[in-house]
Amino acid sequence: MAEQTTVAAATDSPLKRPREGDENGAAAFETNAHISSVIPGWFSEISPMWPGEAHSLKVEKMLFQGKSEYQDVMVFQSATYGKVLVLDGVIQLTERDECAYQEMITHLPLCSIPNPKKVLVVGGGDGGVLREVARHTSIEHIDICEIDKMVVDVSKEFFPDVAVGYDDPRVNLHIGDGVAFLKAAPEGSYDAVIVDSSDPIGPAQELFEKPFFESVAKALRPGGVVCTQAESIWLHMHIIQDIVANCRQVFKGSVNYAWTTVPTYPSGVIGFMLCSTEGPKVDFKNPVNPIDAIDKQSKSVGPLKFYNKEIHSAAFCLPSFAKKVIESKAAK
Amino acid sequence: MAEQTTVAAATDSPLKRPREGDENGAAAFETNAHISSVIPGWFSEISPMWPGEAHSLKVEKMLFQGKSEYQDVMVFQSATYGKVLVLDGVIQLTERDECAYQEMITHLPLCSIPNPKKVLVVGGGDGGVLREVARHTSIEHIDICEIDKMVVDVSKEFFPDVAVGYDDPRVNLHIGDGVAFLKAAPEGSYDAVIVDSSDPIGPAQELFEKPFFESVAKALRPGGVVCTQAESIWLHMHIIQDIVANCRQVFKGSVNYAWTTVPTYPSGVIGFMLCSTEGPKVDFKNPVNPIDAIDKQSKSVGPLKFYNKEIHSAAFCLPSFAKKVIESKAAK
Repeated sequence: MAEQTTVAAATDSPLKRPREGDENGAAAFETNAHISSVIPGWFSEISPMWPGEAHSLKVEKMLFQGKSEYQDVMVFQSATYGKVLVLDGVIQLTERDECAYQEMITHLPLCSIPNPKKVLVVGGGDGGVLREVARHTSIEHIDICEIDKMVVDVSKEFFPDVAVGYDDPRVNLHIGDGVAFLKAAPEGSYDAVIVDSSDPIGPAQELFEKPFFESVAKALRPGGVVCTQAESIWLHMHIIQDIVANCRQVFKGSVNYAWTTVPTYPSGVIGFMLCSTEGPKVDFKNPVNPIDAIDKQSKSVGPLKFYNKEIHSAAFCLPSFAKKVIESKAAK
Repeated sequence: MAEQTTVAAATDSPLKRPREGDENGAAAFETNAHISSVIPGWFSEISPMWPGEAHSLKVEKMLFQGKSEYQDVMVFQSATYGKVLVLDGVIQLTERDECAYQEMITHLPLCSIPNPKKVLVVGGGDGGVLREVARHTSIEHIDICEIDKMVVDVSKEFFPDVAVGYDDPRVNLHIGDGVAFLKAAPEGSYDAVIVDSSDPIGPAQELFEKPFFESVAKALRPGGVVCTQAESIWLHMHIIQDIVANCRQVFKGSVNYAWTTVPTYPSGVIGFMLCSTEGPKVDFKNPVNPIDAIDKQSKSVGPLKFYNKEIHSAAFCLPSFAKKVIESKAAK
């Protein structure tokens, strides 16, 4: 306990370089209030969002610890999941399983509409969603609005295979508040909006609220689509219920929930809300814009690792306990 | 460190009652070599089967620690996942998410064939698979062969909603080795065999080997089906590759891999091998024996929480990285 207190007192420095090669090297983590004591030499993800459980990864080397205007940013080399990006104590991506999240949050919406041309990414500062959007040859313009420049910089330095998304000439990076960006966006201008946010505790809170969804709907063309990160069916059914209720009020086309497996996210799954605005009907469960053929052209980033059209449709099949809640909302 | 050594010296007692109400109560776990130091008051699942990562659950109260002839058996009340059964340091079930595993391992095979009458469960001593098998009104006879009586006894004492499966009069419990039981079974006698095993390190090792699959195939009727626990696509692709190769040699009907989400299993997913013997063709992906209707009759155990026919078919859709490996084996 003494050690914890001592190290915690050193939290003032905005950029911390941890001790290395120390059996109790995890003490370095104590400089970050979001990272609790736990297994020496391991990072443990403890949060009120998932009380009573924690996933831990063995740390080989601490690579970066910083405090941006918005959050704590950390990168470490893990023993078995490659490099890991952590924001406010919560794992955002690991090199080993990021493919599942990035490919699904991107291709679920973009493969559901013919010829997407203009896309907005809100959040997603690591660049992984950009990398996936860029696989679609129909795309002409990609805006990304990330609030935290440190996330972009850290990704470019430590995750070149993810930040490669920024190399595409169609990408326009805006550092700023996604809520404000969307309010200022011309009406009906985007074919798709992808909201790659962190959890609703912290800077991403507003991205789960109704006014934000209203801005998204306005910025989309008729029959345009949005895909937002929508938590875990095992952990956050009450949050999902609220998101579904809000989306049913705002989006007059389709409103669907999908999920996929991501081992390093709490409970091992993550969900997505997929909605469309009034206009040409979007049948999210039966993709009309297959990427398998297009993808052969995409030499710079390698083939898709996770997404295919079968897993696209399967993602919308929910366990009975989740279906009951999500579809009962539909009845209201 | 001194405490660890001291407590470890007390491992001789076959039944350990832990200290309670102690901030460092986790020291009680140190009596079990499979359970590492870690977070005080938490259980952490550390294994060479998933190096460099560990899932931890907060312990409210230790309920049972024993050492059977085969393995360490532990039950604790967790803070947020209900009661938890642990064998050799590995979580077997929690009250919160056991529905996913038990329902999928049972109904994937039984809903794929018309009128299953005689079923064998290998392992599954907790009784959860029995509970699910018993939902099928066509079933006349259920054999279960569990090697470890302590698992059965502990489940009956601490997990009544799981062990309820034993209450069904069609159930016949055999305590013994599943491998020997299958060798002695009359040929062509079962419609389905469900292998609910632990990981291939420990007493379940033989259940992943070719001679065992040969015994299963012999015991099944023509067009009979087997479903075996088959690890995680994220962690154990090499084990899965071997299982698939063995099954393709042994089972001359269909051979398929399916998966589902179970938050408290490593990487958050678990897979199943589903195979059929030569005979009437079995199309696992399109179930012919829906349980939704039958299930209304099953009043004693409550409605299905996880399984439905959409998630049955979806379970066979694999991420591209897994599809590539599993289907390349198919080509051989």
